[in-house]
Amino acid sequence: MSTVTDSARAANQAAEGAQHLVVTLSCPDRPGIVHAVTGALARRGGNITESQQFGDAETGLFFMRVTVLTRVPRSELEADLDELAAQYEMTWSVDEAERRVRALLMVSKEGHCLSDLLFRAKSQGLPIDVVGVVGNHETLRDVAEFYGVPFHHVPVTKETKAEAEAELLSLVESLEVELVVLARYMQILSPALCERLHGNVINIHHSFLPSFKGAKPYQQAHDRGVKLIGATAHYVTPDLDEGPIIEQDVTRASHTDSALALQRKGQDVERRVLAQAVKWHAEHRVLLNGSRTVVFA
Amino acid sequence: MSTVTDSARAANQAAEGAQHLVVTLSCPDRPGIVHAVTGALARRGGNITESQQFGDAETGLFFMRVTVLTRVPRSELEADLDELAAQYEMTWSVDEAERRVRALLMVSKEGHCLSDLLFRAKSQGLPIDVVGVVGNHETLRDVAEFYGVPFHHVPVTKETKAEAEAELLSLVESLEVELVVLARYMQILSPALCERLHGNVINIHHSFLPSFKGAKPYQQAHDRGVKLIGATAHYVTPDLDEGPIIEQDVTRASHTDSALALQRKGQDVERRVLAQAVKWHAEHRVLLNGSRTVVFA
Amino acid sequence: MSTVTDSARAANQAAEGAQHLVVTLSCPDRPGIVHAVTGALARRGGNITESQQFGDAETGLFFMRVTVLTRVPRSELEADLDELAAQYEMTWSVDEAERRVRALLMVSKEGHCLSDLLFRAKSQGLPIDVVGVVGNHETLRDVAEFYGVPFHHVPVTKETKAEAEAELLSLVESLEVELVVLARYMQILSPALCERLHGNVINIHHSFLPSFKGAKPYQQAHDRGVKLIGATAHYVTPDLDEGPIIEQDVTRASHTDSALALQRKGQDVERRVLAQAVKWHAEHRVLLNGSRTVVFA
Amino acid sequence: MSTVTDSARAANQAAEGAQHLVVTLSCPDRPGIVHAVTGALARRGGNITESQQFGDAETGLFFMRVTVLTRVPRSELEADLDELAAQYEMTWSVDEAERRVRALLMVSKEGHCLSDLLFRAKSQGLPIDVVGVVGNHETLRDVAEFYGVPFHHVPVTKETKAEAEAELLSLVESLEVELVVLARYMQILSPALCERLHGNVINIHHSFLPSFKGAKPYQQAHDRGVKLIGATAHYVTPDLDEGPIIEQDVTRASHTDSALALQRKGQDVERRVLAQAVKWHAEHRVLLNGSRTVVFA
Repeated sequence: MSTVTDSARAANQAAEGAQHLVVTLSCPDRPGIVHAVTGALARRGGNITESQQFGDAETGLFFMRVTVLTRVPRSELEADLDELAAQYEMTWSVDEAERRVRALLMVSKEGHCLSDLLFRAKSQGLPIDVVGVVGNHETLRDVAEFYGVPFHHVPVTKETKAEAEAELLSLVESLEVELVVLARYMQILSPALCERLHGNVINIHHSFLPSFKGAKPYQQAHDRGVKLIGATAHYVTPDLDEGPIIEQDVTRASHTDSALALQRKGQDVERRVLAQAVKWHAEHRVLLNGSRTVVFA
Repeated sequence: MSTVTDSARAANQAAEGAQHLVVTLSCPDRPGIVHAVTGALARRGGNITESQQFGDAETGLFFMRVTVLTRVPRSELEADLDELAAQYEMTWSVDEAERRVRALLMVSKEGHCLSDLLFRAKSQGLPIDVVGVVGNHETLRDVAEFYGVPFHHVPVTKETKAEAEAELLSLVESLEVELVVLARYMQILSPALCERLHGNVINIHHSFLPSFKGAKPYQQAHDRGVKLIGATAHYVTPDLDEGPIIEQDVTRASHTDSALALQRKGQDVERRVLAQAVKWHAEHRVLLNGSRTVVFA
Repeated sequence: MSTVTDSARAANQAAEGAQHLVVTLSCPDRPGIVHAVTGALARRGGNITESQQFGDAETGLFFMRVTVLTRVPRSELEADLDELAAQYEMTWSVDEAERRVRALLMVSKEGHCLSDLLFRAKSQGLPIDVVGVVGNHETLRDVAEFYGVPFHHVPVTKETKAEAEAELLSLVESLEVELVVLARYMQILSPALCERLHGNVINIHHSFLPSFKGAKPYQQAHDRGVKLIGATAHYVTPDLDEGPIIEQDVTRASHTDSALALQRKGQDVERRVLAQAVKWHAEHRVLLNGSRTVVFA
Repeated sequence: MSTVTDSARAANQAAEGAQHLVVTLSCPDRPGIVHAVTGALARRGGNITESQQFGDAETGLFFMRVTVLTRVPRSELEADLDELAAQYEMTWSVDEAERRVRALLMVSKEGHCLSDLLFRAKSQGLPIDVVGVVGNHETLRDVAEFYGVPFHHVPVTKETKAEAEAELLSLVESLEVELVVLARYMQILSPALCERLHGNVINIHHSFLPSFKGAKPYQQAHDRGVKLIGATAHYVTPDLDEGPIIEQDVTRASHTDSALALQRKGQDVERRVLAQAVKWHAEHRVLLNGSRTVVFA
């Protein structure tokens, strides 16, 4: 069920004092999980509004996302989940449905992804609260400020990289950032930082991975003569361009497209794919499954 | 979880004597449904391998599809569901997962959908057992027979329509047909027949409905100068071209396309869309929600 | 050949004093047209960099778009075309390739198309020069002004419609506007104004025309249960939603999408389709062929 | 202009004794080429029905495809083109428009591409005349024979590869084959054979190249967790999976898809992409531009 439909029902019931929660969990697959979880929800007077499950026969892991309306304090549900977690070796999370996730956007000079995310957060229902924009150049300060978001200029050179990352981490902490989005940031994060923020940094790569890893993917695509170009949103890992893929899309190319024309066409795909990935992440629809993702779209 | 993944796990557990069932149900939405259903499954020793739920805030109806592995006789599970049905005003069905649905294909002269469905049923995992082909012309007898399927020539004229439909119904009964597919049949079924087979007849319309209802949609599309053409698979109702839509898709058109060129391009979309709709129906992924469908794809 | 590729070559030759022109023409189809036109170009020392032709067998009309590099004054080429026009009953136009077309954007309260067009004009190579934004509400003034474009508040009521259109026409004249874009303007232009600006006003309709004409197309789409939603960019004619279509596209919908969710998904399609149509128009790639268009994409 | 539109006009004029020819050419780019070529056509009383040109600014090569109706013997036009070829270092070809190209299809055990091509050639206007099917297994003999096409069983082992290729070449010669299609043939042609048939062998690779070259691309795609899978039709060169790309397309995948499910979805893309590439090739719409292609679609 879409958030919107949820909203309609949630609105009805919230009037009666209920809150709308989203629960995600994963654990080794075995009989009874769904019944145990829905039992805990039912005991807490919860009405399930949406639910999806997936059991991965290859890894033996089970994944679940469920949204529920309840009038019982959230802490009681959390206590139940803690108990189940011990029994089923389960990792879980609970959040208010539709709460806006605190996001930090990182950019360089190209503004198409930044403009797009800020516009969607303001006017098109993207459930993030952009608490800051970090740029290694000053170029996009005006865009951030137009949307009322503080801009932090954090230049990066080989020499100052460690310092810059420290500043970034300090921002992440002081701003209570939950999600970092590399919106065409063009800098590689250190392995330590990748580990530190594991599962909470989304990057947009300007190719249909695993094609055209690394630099200048549009030039590579042009040289190979492909008939479609694409973009890939993925979680950042120390292994460059190898992180778990969240979303991909493509658009048509032709012999008439120069590398620059491909780049311009591709920017449309980049911003669309990144916005979709950020939306799914913020709605707790993306669960990590090793080097892959489960997306309850 | 895909049928294939299911298969992998099902195979493991079937070795131990379990059977793989798919349960679908719908009822007025209220708290506790999921817990009650999963409880019944758990009591019967069932392990859920896949599950999707949807509550329609507008109609107040709840829909669920769940696949389960169990060693308990199916009749016991059915008894449980009967009890729940009384309590929750629920309609439900149980079937063996991946059982091939007995299908009757109806055709006229154009063979693209027929060839495609027969090929997919034979070689690409489409879970239908084509028990007969009915044609109002002899044109496609050879295709049916190549695939080893009996062909029934049932000509239709204004005068003989009632007679032809009686013959069709008689085939449906004698062949124990569960699904009728109008694979470019080009004849309109009588309202009585539509009612009789409600929810079990899928038609492919050669336009992106509700655009270009009625005759010669490609000519209409050409005259209007559209830049995409499409096809629509829907359940057949007495209200022509108004039945619940199961699947739609489109392909690009341009000013260079004559009505005939559009038709040829469109045939590709028709067969793809029809095959997808038939697959989802046969896998019990399509539930009726008034004049619309819920598709647990 | 793309503009970008042209640019590369154009740059080379412009260094030597050549200019890059784009010629479009249409006339009744008969032998010798292409040779006559390319002959005129050759006599003027022109090197063809790109060319497309289309003869419509149904209407008997011939269409051509050709880009050419030449060092001869443009007026000499125009004199040649005037001569050919008399001989072949030809209508033609000549423009500098890649000249930015002077555009006026008209909006109401929804900003997704406006933001997108302004961003693309500034940073993504959309060849328009936005000389003004007209809004019947003040809502989007800040967006226009952020991009440095004057915003004109022209409210419209039943009583003041004639007056408002007079003000619009006055702006069109004083700003030397070549293209008017209804970027979700939500007002219907009078037949007289449609005629006056014929072929120079592009509208974005928020459905896949001819489906869901008129008001609330997303609600209509939701009620019909379609599995794809779309948008249509077309030239404005007095016949509402019936103008020649320039571009269309779609995106997937599902049973989980409320009308509001469809609207949000649809906005993405709207802005993409409108931007594409404006780009092709500004590059002189769209020629009118009665109630349809020829698009030399 | 589409072949269909051409046909309409061609039919009109053929009644008057005209023939419909398609001319393709490429040469180093310089002023006057189009005028010279259209001049030759005009002198021979030809009426251009369709034309596309492309100048590649990077390689400095010019490409043209033009269709023309003429009553003059084809040999006279060919004489003109020979003259121009000398002057402009031009390579060219002339063919009757819509003549069916003599094609040999090579297969292994999977029949989806074979069935599809044979059906399209028979019933959906694919302009090839399938003069034989070669299989390294007997599996698909019945399909070929159902369509009335001779099937040649040419088994291949490491030891007999040279012999098998000799047999293939002998078939190519005796059947006057113009186009070889590797319709999921699963064998690698020797470099010598690739050279010998250069530009006349089309292969379908079951991935979105350059992703997942080599063996088991669906397993590779599954392991990487991509969200789209694709297929690539390309000319065969000695450099495996590196030949000039003619067409590519993709379809969506999800976490629920096993490698086998990806394969089944992918087969749909494979046959669609291959059929499109074969159609464009047979209509002389594909010109080689080094390691890339120009496709006048």
